[in-house]
Amino acid sequence: MKRVLIIGIGAGDPAHLTFQAAAAIASADVFFLLDKGAEKDGLVRLRRELIAAHAREPYRTVEARDPERDRTSGAYVEAVADWRARRADVYARLIAEEVPEDGVGAFLVWGDPALYDSTIAIVEDVLAKGGEPFDYEVIPGISSVSALAARHRVSLTRVAKPLHITTGRRLPADVEAADDIVVMLDAGCAFADLPEAAGADVYWGAYVGTEDEILLAGPVREVAGEIRRLRAQAREAHGWVMDTYLLRKPAR
Amino acid sequence: MKRVLIIGIGAGDPAHLTFQAAAAIASADVFFLLDKGAEKDGLVRLRRELIAAHAREPYRTVEARDPERDRTSGAYVEAVADWRARRADVYARLIAEEVPEDGVGAFLVWGDPALYDSTIAIVEDVLAKGGEPFDYEVIPGISSVSALAARHRVSLTRVAKPLHITTGRRLPADVEAADDIVVMLDAGCAFADLPEAAGADVYWGAYVGTEDEILLAGPVREVAGEIRRLRAQAREAHGWVMDTYLLRKPAR
Ligand SMILES: C[S@@+](CC[C@H](N)C(=O)[O-])C[C@H]1O[C@@H](n2cnc3c(N)ncnc32)[C@H](O)[C@@H]1O
Ligand SMILES: C[S@@+](CC[C@H](N)C(=O)[O-])C[C@H]1O[C@@H](n2cnc3c(N)ncnc32)[C@H](O)[C@@H]1O
Repeated sequence: MKRVLIIGIGAGDPAHLTFQAAAAIASADVFFLLDKGAEKDGLVRLRRELIAAHAREPYRTVEARDPERDRTSGAYVEAVADWRARRADVYARLIAEEVPEDGVGAFLVWGDPALYDSTIAIVEDVLAKGGEPFDYEVIPGISSVSALAARHRVSLTRVAKPLHITTGRRLPADVEAADDIVVMLDAGCAFADLPEAAGADVYWGAYVGTEDEILLAGPVREVAGEIRRLRAQAREAHGWVMDTYLLRKPAR
Repeated sequence: MKRVLIIGIGAGDPAHLTFQAAAAIASADVFFLLDKGAEKDGLVRLRRELIAAHAREPYRTVEARDPERDRTSGAYVEAVADWRARRADVYARLIAEEVPEDGVGAFLVWGDPALYDSTIAIVEDVLAKGGEPFDYEVIPGISSVSALAARHRVSLTRVAKPLHITTGRRLPADVEAADDIVVMLDAGCAFADLPEAAGADVYWGAYVGTEDEILLAGPVREVAGEIRRLRAQAREAHGWVMDTYLLRKPAR
């Protein structure tokens, strides 16, 4: 039976790789590199670097165009569902045509495959389509959330208290869900406009773990403006930005 | 200046170690092994194994008795605060007396140091006491949460939705905080008694990543009894149990 590996590679630093992930890379015959467009070059570069460092020769890499998401649509969940279906077609073809009999194909996933990543769901969709069966395995990775906390030397959780992880889009609705909130996928400093966050501290990081890492922390009142400025500037310079933050409100 | 490293080692599988953590272990002169009592033997064993595999000779290990928490007290937050103060005294002494001038001392932390672990806070407390200054660094690790999700091959987050991470004690208060909830530090299947969780799916794991790993998933209605039974049996056999689960309610 063919095997598919979904391998978490950490959030930007090649040294985030685990020994388990390195062994998984060494066991693969073919790596799938899904291109998300020029702006995500950095993401593909880390994958290539890790493959070159850990893959066992001979191996192949197969590049494919990752179907684009319809970002003009207001219906976020539907747009993502449609996108996922088109990706399932691409992944099904890659697994069927490129993984040798009894061979191993690998997807290298940014951060941890369990956090805001659709690879597991797409592979499940491929299996559900009912083609040739295959086995698959997931290897955990250092998430951008763990990486952010480590760089700020801060615990995500306070004693006996919860942590809420959400998106920029949902932050206004979720801001009372916990006193400690991690925000990902934020199109632009959602915290800075929220009255409920005005008394909080923020631990912000962009490109965490990479050479371009930027970190800033402090009371929202004092640092929100500077974070906005740094973020806009970085986005301008790189063409894209990848940032995450912990919002820590005074404990109730 | 002395340096202290707080190194995340993953949640049980030695292969969870990252290359960054292995390099950090190789850079340390002295390792602090804090004994939490016989029942946590497995936790110390993994640390010893990782030190033996990655430390650069000559190195020293120093064992110390980790002050016990007062578990009889009903005042959880106060008991933890008092415990942390006593631990700060122990850590301050270890760093002052055991780390050589310009040397490196290391604490190996289970899972990710940012998730329900007090080492960062204790080291901050030691610095706040105002003794000899030292520098410190945190290295992220694979958390038991990432490990659990990978073994169940399940994403923790659903598209555009939040994830709430909480404790068994808080679950009754937090059960409506999100449709996807991870529970840690649960003294005994808090989910099984909650009417709000009756319609959910649960992805449960004990000793995840270790040889003793137990996994079970399914609708709470169908598997809660079996999880209780497996947990009680494992606890009986090992003297202690370490488990985590994802509660996935139907999406609203
Ligand atoms: C599609 S999600 C993937 C998350 C990934 N699976 C993880 O575990 O980090 C992308 C979001 O992750 C966060 N992110 C990923 N890598 C990051 C990094 N190196 N620095 C800061 N944020 C990052 C950002 O919030 C970004 O919008
Ligand atoms: C004091 S917290 C430390 C968590 C750790 N820092 C981490 O990142 O996983 C201990 C709790 O973590 C969870 N845990 C740690 N290791 C585990 C494992 N191997 N399997 C299942 N749960 C685990 C359990 O919920 C346990 O009560």
